[in-house]
Amino acid sequence: MREPITGAWASPGAHRYSILVHGGAGDVPPARREAHEAGCRAAASAGLAVLARGGSALDAVQAAVEVLEDDPRYNAGTGGSLDEDGALRLDACIMEGEHLRAGAVAVLPPFRHPIAVARDVLNDGRHVLYAGAGAERFATGAGHAREEGMVTDAARARLAVVRDGASGNWAGGTVGAVARDAAGHVAAATSTGGMVGKRSGRVGDSPIPGAGNYADDRAGAASGTGEGEGYLRAALAARACFYLEAGAQPRDAAERVMGTLHERTGMRGGIILVGRDGTLGLARTTETMSWAAAWEGAPPSSGCG
Amino acid sequence: MREPITGAWASPGAHRYSILVHGGAGDVPPARREAHEAGCRAAASAGLAVLARGGSALDAVQAAVEVLEDDPRYNAGTGGSLDEDGALRLDACIMEGEHLRAGAVAVLPPFRHPIAVARDVLNDGRHVLYAGAGAERFATGAGHAREEGMVTDAARARLAVVRDGASGNWAGGTVGAVARDAAGHVAAATSTGGMVGKRSGRVGDSPIPGAGNYADDRAGAASGTGEGEGYLRAALAARACFYLEAGAQPRDAAERVMGTLHERTGMRGGIILVGRDGTLGLARTTETMSWAAAWEGAPPSSGCG
Repeated sequence: MREPITGAWASPGAHRYSILVHGGAGDVPPARREAHEAGCRAAASAGLAVLARGGSALDAVQAAVEVLEDDPRYNAGTGGSLDEDGALRLDACIMEGEHLRAGAVAVLPPFRHPIAVARDVLNDGRHVLYAGAGAERFATGAGHAREEGMVTDAARARLAVVRDGASGNWAGGTVGAVARDAAGHVAAATSTGGMVGKRSGRVGDSPIPGAGNYADDRAGAASGTGEGEGYLRAALAARACFYLEAGAQPRDAAERVMGTLHERTGMRGGIILVGRDGTLGLARTTETMSWAAAWEGAPPSSGCG
Repeated sequence: MREPITGAWASPGAHRYSILVHGGAGDVPPARREAHEAGCRAAASAGLAVLARGGSALDAVQAAVEVLEDDPRYNAGTGGSLDEDGALRLDACIMEGEHLRAGAVAVLPPFRHPIAVARDVLNDGRHVLYAGAGAERFATGAGHAREEGMVTDAARARLAVVRDGASGNWAGGTVGAVARDAAGHVAAATSTGGMVGKRSGRVGDSPIPGAGNYADDRAGAASGTGEGEGYLRAALAARACFYLEAGAQPRDAAERVMGTLHERTGMRGGIILVGRDGTLGLARTTETMSWAAAWEGAPPSSGCG
């Protein structure tokens, strides 16, 4: 394992269809790791069910991420981290690799499934990314309704700790998924509440194609989690996909870009990748990253440690 | 020249310091092309003056872009295109290649120099990108004041034409600059009003590191102009820099990514590049792209069409 990589994993080879899900790079205490893994397994299973019935990678990653957005343990959707004003403002991106179509929302107020709003942006096709009040206008116009009750006591407590100066801003817990379907197409989806106590209007890497999320059938697909400013500055998801396109195996590409992130920005995180042949791989430079993988004809794999 | 490239140019070789400026890919009528070139020459001269006195590439690209933001002929700052509500909402990004530091604002209401706000985001260092109301809050906190009088009659007329359905949304005219300084560092800056009649909250490629703007001392620097959704989807500025890092000459890398943009998204535009050795290059797939270049010991070059 290369310095400063703290963990890595790869699936045993090419798969006709496959999915890899993460519940965020960070520092999950040992007592909670099994629960974090279990949530990722549930998400991977939801995605695998889509793939097993011949569904698209795009539908599979959306289904997986919606499971995690509903789970308050993760920093996405319900339970997402709060900004400096105590507001829940959500970022999400979804992308498919055949035509490079992408949809994303940033600084979105509480809607149950930001990834579903991003999917509607992709389907609509007029623009790729909406932020703030315009993102809310798009979501409402697409038939989504603002939700109450998405701000949890745990999220309020995390913000209080950051405001007291007892902790840094980065809580981890961004969620994401990458998949390849039986037709050979790849997709990626990523969703987050962002940094705890982030300044108003801050856009992280998760909603940005090429930073925290990317998909290209000629390369593969990527979803990142970590100190988002570094992912933006290093164009990390695009960088990982360029390495895949040049022939790197997913685990090697993941280790390489996490090394680049560390070397060039001093920042940490993790990334999950699927190659165009369905091979899965991941690497992290954090204490933990919860993840689960599933593919045709094998029981799910998972980890958080 | 490769299909579908409509124009390309390269400087004669490596330069100790150099700058290349664009005034946007689009379709400038022949009668206005000399004026568009002249504005770019003024911007390149402002940047060259910074470089000639030993200033940084970062300061040079900011100085060049500020000249074009003040010029109402270009779609950036004063005279920028209006959104569907008739509002001026501005996007800008600036980035340096030594430490990959970047600053950006999106959906920013009228401030005279969005690129100067982006520079303050970079200098502040807490986040990379702010959008909408949060971007305005950051700008005000950094000492910038909202401006009156930045909406021009020409911008209102362009919006009326689009609303009448007599023209598409894409007006061209985004501005940008790339430079290398005598210390060997590169930088890029890009600023725009975005598409005419864009939906509220739409974020284009210009404020996104890796999409419309990128800089990395190991590769070079890039500024794009064109149909921004395609630049986001193709991670075009990052893609160009990866080709430079792999050894491509700037003009070749520019032609290659404009080909990728066309092939994968069907969209058009232009891109300017500087290699790490100061070589300049550009390519476009549009009718025109105004540009001007300057480097140590040579009179400025320019073109538009």
